[in-house]
Amino acid sequence: MSEEFRIEHDTMGEVKVPKDALYSAQTQRAVQNFPISGKTLESAHIAALAQVKKAAAKANLELGVLDADRAGAIQKAAEAVISGEYDAHFPIDVFQTGSGTSSNMNTNEVLASLATKALESQDIDVHPNDHVNASQSSNDVFPTSVHVAVTKALVNTLVPAMETLATSLEKKAKEFAQIVKSGRTHLMDATPVTLGQEFGGYAAQVRYGIERIEASLPRVAEVPQGGTAVGTGINTPAGFSARVVEILAEETGLPITEARNHFEAQANRDGLIEASGQLRTIAYGYMKICNDLRWMGSGPNTGLGEIAIPDLQPGSSIMPGKVNPVICEATIQVAAQVIGNDTTVALSSTNGAFELNVGIPVMASNLLESIRLLANSSTVMAEKMIDGLQANEERARFLAEASPSIVTPLNKVIGYESAAKIAKHAVANKMTVKEATMDLGFVSDGSITEADLDSALDVTTMIGDYK
Amino acid sequence: MSEEFRIEHDTMGEVKVPKDALYSAQTQRAVQNFPISGKTLESAHIAALAQVKKAAAKANLELGVLDADRAGAIQKAAEAVISGEYDAHFPIDVFQTGSGTSSNMNTNEVLASLATKALESQDIDVHPNDHVNASQSSNDVFPTSVHVAVTKALVNTLVPAMETLATSLEKKAKEFAQIVKSGRTHLMDATPVTLGQEFGGYAAQVRYGIERIEASLPRVAEVPQGGTAVGTGINTPAGFSARVVEILAEETGLPITEARNHFEAQANRDGLIEASGQLRTIAYGYMKICNDLRWMGSGPNTGLGEIAIPDLQPGSSIMPGKVNPVICEATIQVAAQVIGNDTTVALSSTNGAFELNVGIPVMASNLLESIRLLANSSTVMAEKMIDGLQANEERARFLAEASPSIVTPLNKVIGYESAAKIAKHAVANKMTVKEATMDLGFVSDGSITEADLDSALDVTTMIGDYK
Amino acid sequence: MSEEFRIEHDTMGEVKVPKDALYSAQTQRAVQNFPISGKTLESAHIAALAQVKKAAAKANLELGVLDADRAGAIQKAAEAVISGEYDAHFPIDVFQTGSGTSSNMNTNEVLASLATKALESQDIDVHPNDHVNASQSSNDVFPTSVHVAVTKALVNTLVPAMETLATSLEKKAKEFAQIVKSGRTHLMDATPVTLGQEFGGYAAQVRYGIERIEASLPRVAEVPQGGTAVGTGINTPAGFSARVVEILAEETGLPITEARNHFEAQANRDGLIEASGQLRTIAYGYMKICNDLRWMGSGPNTGLGEIAIPDLQPGSSIMPGKVNPVICEATIQVAAQVIGNDTTVALSSTNGAFELNVGIPVMASNLLESIRLLANSSTVMAEKMIDGLQANEERARFLAEASPSIVTPLNKVIGYESAAKIAKHAVANKMTVKEATMDLGFVSDGSITEADLDSALDVTTMIGDYK
Amino acid sequence: MSEEFRIEHDTMGEVKVPKDALYSAQTQRAVQNFPISGKTLESAHIAALAQVKKAAAKANLELGVLDADRAGAIQKAAEAVISGEYDAHFPIDVFQTGSGTSSNMNTNEVLASLATKALESQDIDVHPNDHVNASQSSNDVFPTSVHVAVTKALVNTLVPAMETLATSLEKKAKEFAQIVKSGRTHLMDATPVTLGQEFGGYAAQVRYGIERIEASLPRVAEVPQGGTAVGTGINTPAGFSARVVEILAEETGLPITEARNHFEAQANRDGLIEASGQLRTIAYGYMKICNDLRWMGSGPNTGLGEIAIPDLQPGSSIMPGKVNPVICEATIQVAAQVIGNDTTVALSSTNGAFELNVGIPVMASNLLESIRLLANSSTVMAEKMIDGLQANEERARFLAEASPSIVTPLNKVIGYESAAKIAKHAVANKMTVKEATMDLGFVSDGSITEADLDSALDVTTMIGDYK
Repeated sequence: MSEEFRIEHDTMGEVKVPKDALYSAQTQRAVQNFPISGKTLESAHIAALAQVKKAAAKANLELGVLDADRAGAIQKAAEAVISGEYDAHFPIDVFQTGSGTSSNMNTNEVLASLATKALESQDIDVHPNDHVNASQSSNDVFPTSVHVAVTKALVNTLVPAMETLATSLEKKAKEFAQIVKSGRTHLMDATPVTLGQEFGGYAAQVRYGIERIEASLPRVAEVPQGGTAVGTGINTPAGFSARVVEILAEETGLPITEARNHFEAQANRDGLIEASGQLRTIAYGYMKICNDLRWMGSGPNTGLGEIAIPDLQPGSSIMPGKVNPVICEATIQVAAQVIGNDTTVALSSTNGAFELNVGIPVMASNLLESIRLLANSSTVMAEKMIDGLQANEERARFLAEASPSIVTPLNKVIGYESAAKIAKHAVANKMTVKEATMDLGFVSDGSITEADLDSALDVTTMIGDYK
Repeated sequence: MSEEFRIEHDTMGEVKVPKDALYSAQTQRAVQNFPISGKTLESAHIAALAQVKKAAAKANLELGVLDADRAGAIQKAAEAVISGEYDAHFPIDVFQTGSGTSSNMNTNEVLASLATKALESQDIDVHPNDHVNASQSSNDVFPTSVHVAVTKALVNTLVPAMETLATSLEKKAKEFAQIVKSGRTHLMDATPVTLGQEFGGYAAQVRYGIERIEASLPRVAEVPQGGTAVGTGINTPAGFSARVVEILAEETGLPITEARNHFEAQANRDGLIEASGQLRTIAYGYMKICNDLRWMGSGPNTGLGEIAIPDLQPGSSIMPGKVNPVICEATIQVAAQVIGNDTTVALSSTNGAFELNVGIPVMASNLLESIRLLANSSTVMAEKMIDGLQANEERARFLAEASPSIVTPLNKVIGYESAAKIAKHAVANKMTVKEATMDLGFVSDGSITEADLDSALDVTTMIGDYK
Repeated sequence: MSEEFRIEHDTMGEVKVPKDALYSAQTQRAVQNFPISGKTLESAHIAALAQVKKAAAKANLELGVLDADRAGAIQKAAEAVISGEYDAHFPIDVFQTGSGTSSNMNTNEVLASLATKALESQDIDVHPNDHVNASQSSNDVFPTSVHVAVTKALVNTLVPAMETLATSLEKKAKEFAQIVKSGRTHLMDATPVTLGQEFGGYAAQVRYGIERIEASLPRVAEVPQGGTAVGTGINTPAGFSARVVEILAEETGLPITEARNHFEAQANRDGLIEASGQLRTIAYGYMKICNDLRWMGSGPNTGLGEIAIPDLQPGSSIMPGKVNPVICEATIQVAAQVIGNDTTVALSSTNGAFELNVGIPVMASNLLESIRLLANSSTVMAEKMIDGLQANEERARFLAEASPSIVTPLNKVIGYESAAKIAKHAVANKMTVKEATMDLGFVSDGSITEADLDSALDVTTMIGDYK
Repeated sequence: MSEEFRIEHDTMGEVKVPKDALYSAQTQRAVQNFPISGKTLESAHIAALAQVKKAAAKANLELGVLDADRAGAIQKAAEAVISGEYDAHFPIDVFQTGSGTSSNMNTNEVLASLATKALESQDIDVHPNDHVNASQSSNDVFPTSVHVAVTKALVNTLVPAMETLATSLEKKAKEFAQIVKSGRTHLMDATPVTLGQEFGGYAAQVRYGIERIEASLPRVAEVPQGGTAVGTGINTPAGFSARVVEILAEETGLPITEARNHFEAQANRDGLIEASGQLRTIAYGYMKICNDLRWMGSGPNTGLGEIAIPDLQPGSSIMPGKVNPVICEATIQVAAQVIGNDTTVALSSTNGAFELNVGIPVMASNLLESIRLLANSSTVMAEKMIDGLQANEERARFLAEASPSIVTPLNKVIGYESAAKIAKHAVANKMTVKEATMDLGFVSDGSITEADLDSALDVTTMIGDYK
């Protein structure tokens, strides 16, 4: 912004505003009042604010609240803001008034400036409150913009990124379908699985995450627009709420619906908290997957060494030749951030009283950041790690056969207690399970034939049919 | 339990067990290993364990794994345990092995004892592992039991209690439909609403909570049963998983389904985390409702005083005659507990690796406690507070008319900026909005007629049609 | 309690109370009002309430508020309650009025009953409010009792248990001082450490935990006693606050002090939140230690296998002979519970307004449970796991020498980049680092002599002097 | 950065780097590997990294590891980076390798470039690993840099800002020392306090926050420097750790000390978690203060209206003339963010295993952000809200006298139960307490004289001497 100023006024008096700023007095006051984080609204959020304004202008025109010139100019201006080209004119800190009134007024002021300029030749003035904000209140516009931005980010950004990841994992599940390895429960040697089964499980976990997001959408995509100040819809024409939401849904292609109860919808942002909770579950899932992967890739010589994670960069400034599972680590940190952001989002519920929650800007900022982080790390995981991951087949098979738990099929032949004796004997004497079975006389006493024993202990028969 | 002992053994050797305990060596070892909290599994959880055993015995019979005598005796024994009469024989601490193996073996031992006794005359021995646990592993039984217990508690306990609460709130919404009061946003005077609209909003919030629970059920009610040790279904007959889950669903009347991916289902308890997240959202909602109520009931003389919350008990040991909104306070504390429990449940995800999560007992304990607490406090709220709550109609109406925000309808007549002047003038000079409007000359200058002004400022016209 | 009843009254009217209950009307009302969790105050908390009453009676006597008979009888009664013998007469749910008024009145009523009985022959009546509660309010008594109970539990229970654990770890640090093993960073092979150094690190982490507790005590041990209703000390004689706190400190032997600001002290429970935060840090530390231990103990054949954790119980109902690190798992679950409890404690801060926090019972319950759980698991860890833990010396040494990072000392001789070439060459060709160095010609080209190479690659020279 | 490239290499091969970038291959790889958040390290963190490098160069010179030319050039280069002028050359994402190796190498590369340039005329090359990183590892440098940056931000930024806030509150405590108002407990009318006492309580709460920060410093300011790769100090000269930490302390003027146990110090970041926990407690305290303030300022006509919070900006886009407590709202959102960041910081503990935590960059980012946010909002609160806050003395006094709890002093004269009758009578019949006392006959029956009653009910006698 220019360092020269012009004078603007609002209901509280005059304010100096940067000469070339599209915003006006109220935005400027907010800039001065909140020198807190240096972080502004997410770009996706600014676009959603303009999207709401555009829909409102159209509904206002249809319902006789705005004339065609102003309604048209506001819609055009909104399109420009949606494109992102005026993001720099939205300088207000995230940590501002809890209703987002400052950012709603910022949007009103920028659109009024652009629309007034566009109508300059006709000498028509567009007022931020009386025209751009007509039939609206910050208290319905701002939360609506958050639900629209979040719905869009979930549907258009996060879900596709998670599908990319799930698909990568599914490809590996197929590729690794015959790689037999030791199962591990309590971190201790268990009966065998295939590496493909494990990757299939990871893919399923990611797909369940998508299902969780979709299960929350009916409530995330519900918006309070039309309730205006307190949910009663004061200062709206009849039918405004239904119509503006219909337009929003059409223009965004998103499953946006009108709040079923406008008082609940003004007072609470529970849909955002629910969505954030689903992201938290997904984040914990990513932690689990990444932890498994880095343990399986641990080594090269002192760890499990069952898989090789692609080498991306030198891993140590002091230990030469070291390479680390850095994408796992970045992703686990993303998960920790998403989980912390979720605390912030949910706790912001306590910042609501009566007809309004006043923790909305910080809820929006955290939730939109979480979606971005999860989406980006889903893609990074898929492309930089999963796709290039390789199995150490021989090592995996060796460990599978070394697990004393492969004695398990003998339960059905000689009972759990005898089988336990064999397993303990094998470990204590560093024998294979077969050796221990024979050493303890189960073949010689006819409990089982050697052929049946061999067949029972064949690890490839223990992996079942599940995929 | 008796202080006399008998000697039992397991694969590790001999153990002294209380003479009259139905459990055996492994339970006793666990009792000794985990002297930590003094808290045992929730009773609902013990019942669910027995429910799984009963279904497994039936499926084992059908699939030829168990003979009719043993299968029958195990089912009978399970029914007795489900009834709760043997809860005292489940003495193991919640803080135990993370797979719940100790509690699974406790169940196996108790059922084996009861079944063996029942078959005493036939001299048939029922073995905890080889018979009661046949075709099963702790790793599928224990998590399945948690999902069954949680599903049951959600569907049969919490949802009905929340419906009771929602119904109470809806009754009050109707009763208070004509009580006009000041809206409040940012805690500051806003345009009017009815008390009925506010209570309708609370009811809606509770009903959304029910919807959230139901949205999570498809994943909460999915169970890993049949995956046995690591998800491969080792040591199960073909078709076991599908059949045992079918029986479980039939016998419990719950929408239990088989895990769509057995490896995901053994390794993760994400369905529980998702359910816990929904409870957290509900808990924050209860906080909001209770905070609103106690603020509206604040006073009697120095607060808002818009409603009277039923008097339940003396409120102070030093200030005579004081009465406090104690049900609100108890409920908010329940909410804080549920939110903390949710942290525990979700964090337990980090306690999973490869084929098993080993934080299951603590997840179960916290989630089942949360459901109980929310259900009980829903009922208590409804019966001890909402049903007896009364509006202070006169006070509410007085405040509604005192709010300077009732100037809002004038925006459409004289514009936002002129209306702001009126509101400020009214507050500064302790005038009504009408007086301020006239004092500033808006009637005398013809901007609005006095009749139109009266009509615009009638608070009953500002509450809209939404319910 | 008896199922027969007697009639009692309070300022709200008559109530039916179990015939043999020492409590009276207000307790009974609270029992009926809060049928929520079934959980009552922790026993340590009941004792602390009585401890406060005892000190207050003494101060009241000294300052002329109570006569010697009543003061003496109240003190005697308090001693009996402190001993725990009347815990059954404290039946009120944790989820009650947020000030704990119900439990304060419960204490007043029980002590009044006991004191009245003791003075029966003299026909002196002791009134719950006018005598037992003289110069007090629930608003100073109840929080004071929590701070006293927590301080006592920290100082007398948790710190000693943590010292036991630290000492066990330090013994092992000495025992394992010569066991060289591979260090691991990012889970990947790093330069060597000794197992003793690792255990010394664990011991230090536990001792830092003790230091954290002690750092919080100056604020945890500060109590609001004497502020009565709102911090002003209304209805107390001059000097009461200082004197009652002095007596409390003397009689408990704890570093209890009077609040430096009585308004802060009535309104906030920040000292409890701080203490809970320290427990959270300790809990996360226990998670880290237990995770390290169970990874080092993973196997027996497919894991790291560097240590052997004592066998405590059979580990699987299906996999015979399996043994799991169950104390690690129980402890990690304790940690998850403590971390969730901490969320509840901290969040309860939002339950405070003006002169009172009304989330105190739930804060107390969670914090005292956390202390108990951590103390018990500290002892269990020490006695059932650490003390019996054994090193697999040979395996540990083998892995230490297998780590390609033992090339690190060559940095100083041939530079980081050449050393990296050696490490990569070794891994790619399954050579030892020495073989790779020679194979790449660093000895033949005179960069280093073979003797210097041998000396540089001796892992026992890489472990430094730190302990 | 330029869009033209140059070719650089590292141990993995060649990389294209922006032509004018001071960094080299490893930084560039990291930029490409982590396109996740777009957020880089906090500027204060980059400065701290350079501060560590500067100290290390000096110690390396003294201990004979580096020659004077290189050591001098590295120190000079570090000073330039500390000044912030090269922040743009630190482009790596926060979500990177969990050890911060990428950012340590970024620092090494930038300093090597600058130092090499400075020594160009002497044709001396400075190598990122062999010289800048000499005697160091990412595993000690990176965590050390975080502890240094956090200690500095706490001591030099947050504590002074909190002192500003405490001082503002203390000024108001004095100014409001005679403003009598109703106390409120459970949000219900209680005995009187002064507004000054409340503000004194807020000031005390802020000062306790400072005390909490200071109590954590002994552990926050401990650094692992000198432990290098795994805590053993491999590749450091004798005495290096002590010396480098001494230099760090001298040059920063901060109470930095060497880790008492280098293995604990490499493996865990508990000091950061503890510090974050203290910030969380402070954040909850700010919530409480801001909630109290906005409730006391609620109105203007339908709320408590005891204080007037300065008007900073128009509060509504639809309700003209509305002004809201926006600084309270911004601060409460800051608190929610700090509490969420704390979850992230603490949870990152689970991202540690064996000799290294790999969640450090995200811990640093969240903790440094929290400190910045709290510091800025402390100042904003003081300057834009507290300093300009005014009491509505008359209203406050009116409410104080209206509280039925002013009956409390009568307990001592006529007993709690009689006093309760008066309070209830007053409320039920809308009488003053004096009127109710007389109406019930307590004066006429001689229980109390009218003069004593007047004196007992004088609210100015109920506020005590505490400040």
